[in-house]
Amino acid sequence: MFKVTFSFEDGSVVEHFANAGDNLLELAREANVAIDAPCSGNASCGKCRVQLIKGELDSKKTLHISDEEYQAGWRLACVSKICADVTVLVPDIASAYKSRMKVADLSSKEEIAIFENSKNDVEMTGIELRNSLDVIELEMDEPSLDDTMPDNERLTRALKKYMNLKQVRIPYAVLRKLPDVLRENHFKVKCVVRTAPNDLFVYDIFGKDEDVVVGGLAVDIGTTTVSAVLINMETGEILAKASSGNGQIRFGADVINRIIEQQKPGGKKKLQDAVIKETINPLIAQMCKSAGISASHIYRMSVGANTTMNHLFAGINADPVRMEPYIPAFFKTNSLFASDVGVAINKDAHIIIAPNIGSYVGGDITAGTLVSMIWNRPEFSLFIDLGTNGELVFGNSDFMMSCACSAGPAFEGGDISCGMRATDGAIEACTIDKETMIPTYKVVGNPGTKPIGLCGSGIIDVISELFMCGIINPKGKFVREGERIRHDKYGMGSYVIAFESEAGSVKDVEITEVDIDNFIRAKGAIFSAIRTMLNSLDFDVSMIDDVYVAGGIGSGINMRNAVNIGMFPDIPLEKFHYIGNSSLTGSYLMLLSTAAEKKTYELAANMTYMELSTVPTYMDEFVGACFIPHTDTGMFPDVMKDLQNRK
Amino acid sequence: MFKVTFSFEDGSVVEHFANAGDNLLELAREANVAIDAPCSGNASCGKCRVQLIKGELDSKKTLHISDEEYQAGWRLACVSKICADVTVLVPDIASAYKSRMKVADLSSKEEIAIFENSKNDVEMTGIELRNSLDVIELEMDEPSLDDTMPDNERLTRALKKYMNLKQVRIPYAVLRKLPDVLRENHFKVKCVVRTAPNDLFVYDIFGKDEDVVVGGLAVDIGTTTVSAVLINMETGEILAKASSGNGQIRFGADVINRIIEQQKPGGKKKLQDAVIKETINPLIAQMCKSAGISASHIYRMSVGANTTMNHLFAGINADPVRMEPYIPAFFKTNSLFASDVGVAINKDAHIIIAPNIGSYVGGDITAGTLVSMIWNRPEFSLFIDLGTNGELVFGNSDFMMSCACSAGPAFEGGDISCGMRATDGAIEACTIDKETMIPTYKVVGNPGTKPIGLCGSGIIDVISELFMCGIINPKGKFVREGERIRHDKYGMGSYVIAFESEAGSVKDVEITEVDIDNFIRAKGAIFSAIRTMLNSLDFDVSMIDDVYVAGGIGSGINMRNAVNIGMFPDIPLEKFHYIGNSSLTGSYLMLLSTAAEKKTYELAANMTYMELSTVPTYMDEFVGACFIPHTDTGMFPDVMKDLQNRK
Repeated sequence: MFKVTFSFEDGSVVEHFANAGDNLLELAREANVAIDAPCSGNASCGKCRVQLIKGELDSKKTLHISDEEYQAGWRLACVSKICADVTVLVPDIASAYKSRMKVADLSSKEEIAIFENSKNDVEMTGIELRNSLDVIELEMDEPSLDDTMPDNERLTRALKKYMNLKQVRIPYAVLRKLPDVLRENHFKVKCVVRTAPNDLFVYDIFGKDEDVVVGGLAVDIGTTTVSAVLINMETGEILAKASSGNGQIRFGADVINRIIEQQKPGGKKKLQDAVIKETINPLIAQMCKSAGISASHIYRMSVGANTTMNHLFAGINADPVRMEPYIPAFFKTNSLFASDVGVAINKDAHIIIAPNIGSYVGGDITAGTLVSMIWNRPEFSLFIDLGTNGELVFGNSDFMMSCACSAGPAFEGGDISCGMRATDGAIEACTIDKETMIPTYKVVGNPGTKPIGLCGSGIIDVISELFMCGIINPKGKFVREGERIRHDKYGMGSYVIAFESEAGSVKDVEITEVDIDNFIRAKGAIFSAIRTMLNSLDFDVSMIDDVYVAGGIGSGINMRNAVNIGMFPDIPLEKFHYIGNSSLTGSYLMLLSTAAEKKTYELAANMTYMELSTVPTYMDEFVGACFIPHTDTGMFPDVMKDLQNRK
Repeated sequence: MFKVTFSFEDGSVVEHFANAGDNLLELAREANVAIDAPCSGNASCGKCRVQLIKGELDSKKTLHISDEEYQAGWRLACVSKICADVTVLVPDIASAYKSRMKVADLSSKEEIAIFENSKNDVEMTGIELRNSLDVIELEMDEPSLDDTMPDNERLTRALKKYMNLKQVRIPYAVLRKLPDVLRENHFKVKCVVRTAPNDLFVYDIFGKDEDVVVGGLAVDIGTTTVSAVLINMETGEILAKASSGNGQIRFGADVINRIIEQQKPGGKKKLQDAVIKETINPLIAQMCKSAGISASHIYRMSVGANTTMNHLFAGINADPVRMEPYIPAFFKTNSLFASDVGVAINKDAHIIIAPNIGSYVGGDITAGTLVSMIWNRPEFSLFIDLGTNGELVFGNSDFMMSCACSAGPAFEGGDISCGMRATDGAIEACTIDKETMIPTYKVVGNPGTKPIGLCGSGIIDVISELFMCGIINPKGKFVREGERIRHDKYGMGSYVIAFESEAGSVKDVEITEVDIDNFIRAKGAIFSAIRTMLNSLDFDVSMIDDVYVAGGIGSGINMRNAVNIGMFPDIPLEKFHYIGNSSLTGSYLMLLSTAAEKKTYELAANMTYMELSTVPTYMDEFVGACFIPHTDTGMFPDVMKDLQNRK
């Protein structure tokens, strides 16, 4: 046995024992050390870089490691085998996806505003912001030798007297605490109940004088990022907000790799644990602590997620989702409870799932469509969700059509050498001086936070600026020289945004031609999907009245720059609206409002799904879109004019 | 630390470590060594005898251990403290309550007959022997690119087409296996379902060609003994039958001691675990193995138990049951599922509970009343359940009155020095030669099984014979001398039924004056309860048309002897009928037949409860009944005549 020591930038270490020949990435998984491996460990993404500090590793050199880097001890964990005692440094960037759980600052006006606005929008259409949870105060007669009704019948009688009900259901969890709560409080109590016509379910019971917050939990389960809000079900108030990387990341960056991992023995539980036990439950604990409420007082949960994530969350075989004829186990289900899947909230809490409408358009999109309000306007609107999959919905109050394209994780920082999620240390905005080529950037986090990588909006800015400054050509290749521009021995160019000395990590923050190429393919997938869908409806981009952009790409997204690189069509900028994480906002609305939940099912039922891969022109559109901004520059007149002006 | 070695008669040993001063009985509990302690360890019952083999014990001598016995190493575990390494022998008798789980031989005609007769009785009254569980075969269209309905909707559609239904519920457990079962079986399946008007719940799904047994479980949870049958819900066939001591025994012999233990920290879980994890789940495993079915294919469970046992089983505070005004948490409940309490069957299985009607008349009696059929006859019948509590129901098709008395565990062998349950090694019947005073006895078990103790029916026989032979007087004191009759130095007499040499254990099987006194009080409680209840209704024992005797006392009960000792009234013997464990039989009927279940709720609702302790004459009746057969011998004319004849 050898001893493997994982050391971290903050000085902490994790020790683990290993046999000769053990794979370092696998070991890290075993030891619960987060090392991202979006490609699932087949040496293709280059994300799992660690630095050899002491001892030896039996490790191949790969394209992702330069000679100088290899000399300096850099290795890919996925191709490294144990052959001796060894100490490796796991740089912060290596776990930038997974780590850094964040309880958001709710004093932020922007954060609150997104939810408030959406609530108002929905309410204006006549949708009531009421749900089926209630708190009922009851004072019962105490039992006596002349009134010996058992506790559960006494409570039932009191509830039936309070409301006109046929049936009262008292589940085991309440029955179990009933004798004590009744007697400790002299039969004066508060009940948390769910009411339906003629039927009432008692979730919980408290003494009459206890302060009771009826909690609800809305979760957006993204392939890359999981975000959640803890709310007060009576007032709709957001008590806490948090996000972190999806713990499944280590099993692959995209849904296909995850499904493949799920097919392995024990895979269903492994993937489910990764998202529930490792990701959602810690978020819940963190939010409950910050809000000062008990997790057992969360009585309802809503989930917005793509179809695959829904299946992995539920621990249900997702293989049929990816294999023709692409059949999910469910679009929606009424039968999921917290205790079924081990979400650490009240065990009787119902979990509602924003409805999927197909294998590749899931609940994240139906929930987001609710938020986009495109279903309530005569104008033609385009809703774009920029996730690991890109999904589009186009339509108005008369019709809606949806499609999905595989953008990959680039918008959330994946497939990009210095990419990361939009958390502390991420460069989220950037301009470049045309003359000096020196960048000016904005970093997520407290003032003074040093950059460690680039999030989606930062990458868009950097590529747009590089292009508009003539530093890269339409193919994304470097065409100028300078201190910040380098070429490795294979000729691959890169641009340094922050040198190691000014960065918050152990290496330069840079963008390479491979990164740019990956991003171009991601933005090309989006643009060609927009074109293909509009064409099929005989629409032109000029007929789009509004574009609603959602996703974890960050509120800092610069629409001008997104148009510049040919990600979005070249239409007037005022038509673009960033609506934040609409999957989360939509889940929040479904949680808070029974009518909004119904409306979402209705929207899902009325939405047409278009399978892009069956449209013959899609591939041509994609190839054309894999340039900056496009092979057909005529589609981007304003961009070309601006470029001309800058010259 | 000292090493404590528990050694057993079969040669096996259990080792455990202990600190100086640790209590030996507590240690045994920790080490999972069954040593009965009906008095819960306060040195009053004398049951926890062990023999010091090697080493030392810091142990007081008590009244329960004679000088000779102390010399021979006998100690009470409850008063023994660890002071050195020690080896103790735990005799078989010490764990006779708890041990010896028994899967009954179903070839026994008597066993089968009880259930068959009861089924016929009930069916004759027009009660349908049908329940809500069904197996449905379905052939669905396989999905295609033109028919992309998700799996759960496809199944729902097929079920709705098969039956005219409003709602189909597919729980998580089924949803989770749905994709695989459907595809592995080309969408040809069998579903185990529960149907209600317009509503269908899918318990399970299998391939069309699989053999599916829809299992059901009926359990009688007695204070002393737990019995169960595993049945085929479609045919009613009994697939296996088993019983064992209630694991809660080590926390006290009667319900009051158990409730007190439940109030201690962690008590609810401890008592619940003792009956479910230690008792019921092993019985289930044993029965499933013997029947060759999987425990997860048991989809419904019914429980017959007294009110306290119901509460302890459910892990619900039973303290209010024993404290004025004696209020249970529930009489019945609709909300109990296997997963709530950890019974190891299908997690969605509903657990139905035979309804309690008060603190001291529970579901064992309502289930038993169903079986007794007294509710269906114009004649006046008396139903007697001889458990740790004795319960009576008197009435006919017009009225029924019930009451309970505390008999203690004597009928099941408790409070009797050589007492045991009616399992292998128990003397279940006995005659004594009037001249030689030599007994002839019958032992439960295979031919040649040696006696190790006395079960209830055996004790009745021995006391009756001792009395009829003039060996004891009406007060239960020995009045003859002989080889088998001994007196200790305090003058306490005893009679040896089997000397150590012929016995299957390490000591004589005997009955002492203390045992007889305990049994007299138990039988006195029953007789005085009968008298008090009949008196309150202005009835006389002569007006009883039939007596139905139930309970774990064993089918060997000799009614003549039970009358001889004054346990039952002196009425013609042909009026007495032993109906076995009617709590178990009744639970079986409730499980098998929805109509029988409803009927039981109806019987419970119409049964009047009489609280004996509030009747002023009850104590006088009891005192009078604490003789053999009674202080008022005029009530036992036939017994007195017989006694005269024998002289």
